[in-house]
Amino acid sequence: MSAEITIKSQFYDLDPMGIVWHGNYARFFEQARCALLDHLDYNYQQMSDSGYAWPIVEMQVKYVQPIRFPQDITVTATLAEYENRLKIKYLIQDSETGKKLTKGFTTQVAIDKKADEMLFQSPDILYEKVEKLLCAEE
Amino acid sequence: MSAEITIKSQFYDLDPMGIVWHGNYARFFEQARCALLDHLDYNYQQMSDSGYAWPIVEMQVKYVQPIRFPQDITVTATLAEYENRLKIKYLIQDSETGKKLTKGFTTQVAIDKKADEMLFQSPDILYEKVEKLLCAEE
Amino acid sequence: MSAEITIKSQFYDLDPMGIVWHGNYARFFEQARCALLDHLDYNYQQMSDSGYAWPIVEMQVKYVQPIRFPQDITVTATLAEYENRLKIKYLIQDSETGKKLTKGFTTQVAIDKKADEMLFQSPDILYEKVEKLLCAEE
Amino acid sequence: MSAEITIKSQFYDLDPMGIVWHGNYARFFEQARCALLDHLDYNYQQMSDSGYAWPIVEMQVKYVQPIRFPQDITVTATLAEYENRLKIKYLIQDSETGKKLTKGFTTQVAIDKKADEMLFQSPDILYEKVEKLLCAEE
Repeated sequence: MSAEITIKSQFYDLDPMGIVWHGNYARFFEQARCALLDHLDYNYQQMSDSGYAWPIVEMQVKYVQPIRFPQDITVTATLAEYENRLKIKYLIQDSETGKKLTKGFTTQVAIDKKADEMLFQSPDILYEKVEKLLCAEE
Repeated sequence: MSAEITIKSQFYDLDPMGIVWHGNYARFFEQARCALLDHLDYNYQQMSDSGYAWPIVEMQVKYVQPIRFPQDITVTATLAEYENRLKIKYLIQDSETGKKLTKGFTTQVAIDKKADEMLFQSPDILYEKVEKLLCAEE
Repeated sequence: MSAEITIKSQFYDLDPMGIVWHGNYARFFEQARCALLDHLDYNYQQMSDSGYAWPIVEMQVKYVQPIRFPQDITVTATLAEYENRLKIKYLIQDSETGKKLTKGFTTQVAIDKKADEMLFQSPDILYEKVEKLLCAEE
Repeated sequence: MSAEITIKSQFYDLDPMGIVWHGNYARFFEQARCALLDHLDYNYQQMSDSGYAWPIVEMQVKYVQPIRFPQDITVTATLAEYENRLKIKYLIQDSETGKKLTKGFTTQVAIDKKADEMLFQSPDILYEKVEKLLCAEE
């Protein structure tokens, strides 16, 4: 269960070394994560409508090779866990050569917005969305 | 009626030429604008509580000299108009030498949040806030 | 002489009002500007190779309608002046309806990198690039 | 061996939930890291002058509590390793209450700029800088 997007690195992403500043990768991950959540039909709007917020509680990034300008990168977001929390893994590759540039993950937990309480198990709605997509893919 | 803040330029602000990327100045202006709006006791929270949103409808920036790293800059925000719209002027100077680096302005208009309508005159609350501050300063 | 790109607004572009934060438009303009400069075969790398830096000395943005999430926007960059300085105009439209959302411009001037001097007329290389493209388009 | 800075959260840091967007924490960490590197007299300029670049190869962030607006936060950067790579740990606390908001780390490795080679041990210059500061602190 994954989604893939292609991004062209931009001049505004660069640091004085002429490579993408490490803090900008959170945007690349988010763009791929939203593509995956759209695929699940459970992106920010549907999350909010379902009564839950899903803040990010952890992010890890391993920078294997720098991203330069101009370079087309492919970002793949893959669902890694959904039972208790939503963990998504990311892989960034050079679009042309397939060379691995970056890997990482983010973890999100559900907050019941009405009760303002963090849940220790994912709400039913996420299970349903995942199962629906699994069925559709079979 | 103005407010002044000091900002240390950061590595993450820089572009490959080693100067602050031009798009980052909106953050410097906003930091000074918020200081001025705090001074007026009419920052984002009070705006929202008063029933109005104040989106920015125009921004202009004139880049006179580049900002380098590390450099301390002083940003002064001055109230230029408030009757029909909220116009704030900005001046960025080198904190040490006073040399002028940048000037610009932003314009905001009031939106009545309940009616979702743009106002062609500023609401009373802004007049009151400005007059109160003028009295306090006398 | 213009270039057009399509951008999907992202969650990370949004402010607490749920609209794209006004300071992020500089990124949209830059993405379209780079497409135009690529078209001219005179983007940042070629600029640098030709011995000139082209810092932005002015930017103006008029925010006509907010950009929301998710919304596809089309950004058109058009060459407006090149004789003494490089002025590029921008138009942002909703990709689906064509509705005008934003307009603006940026102005860049040439700096002779060796002499570290600003030029009051554009260097020959820019004239050549523009003429070459004009011929190609005829 | 650590450095501490105070940052006021800004409107432009916020996401539609009204909390600081998770990707912006890289800026907070960098501001504290630069303060620590200044303390070591080995910030970006001295790194570059010494013939080494120190790209970030890993970043981890654990978001314990959200950062709101306006909120003053204290970011502490602590040297955790320097022998083979430069590992810096971060702690973000509410400036007023001391409550822990975030923790994380970054890892940097030395690249010999002339040889364009990654080093598996930190160069002597970093050892010297660390020892000099240790002596000064005794």
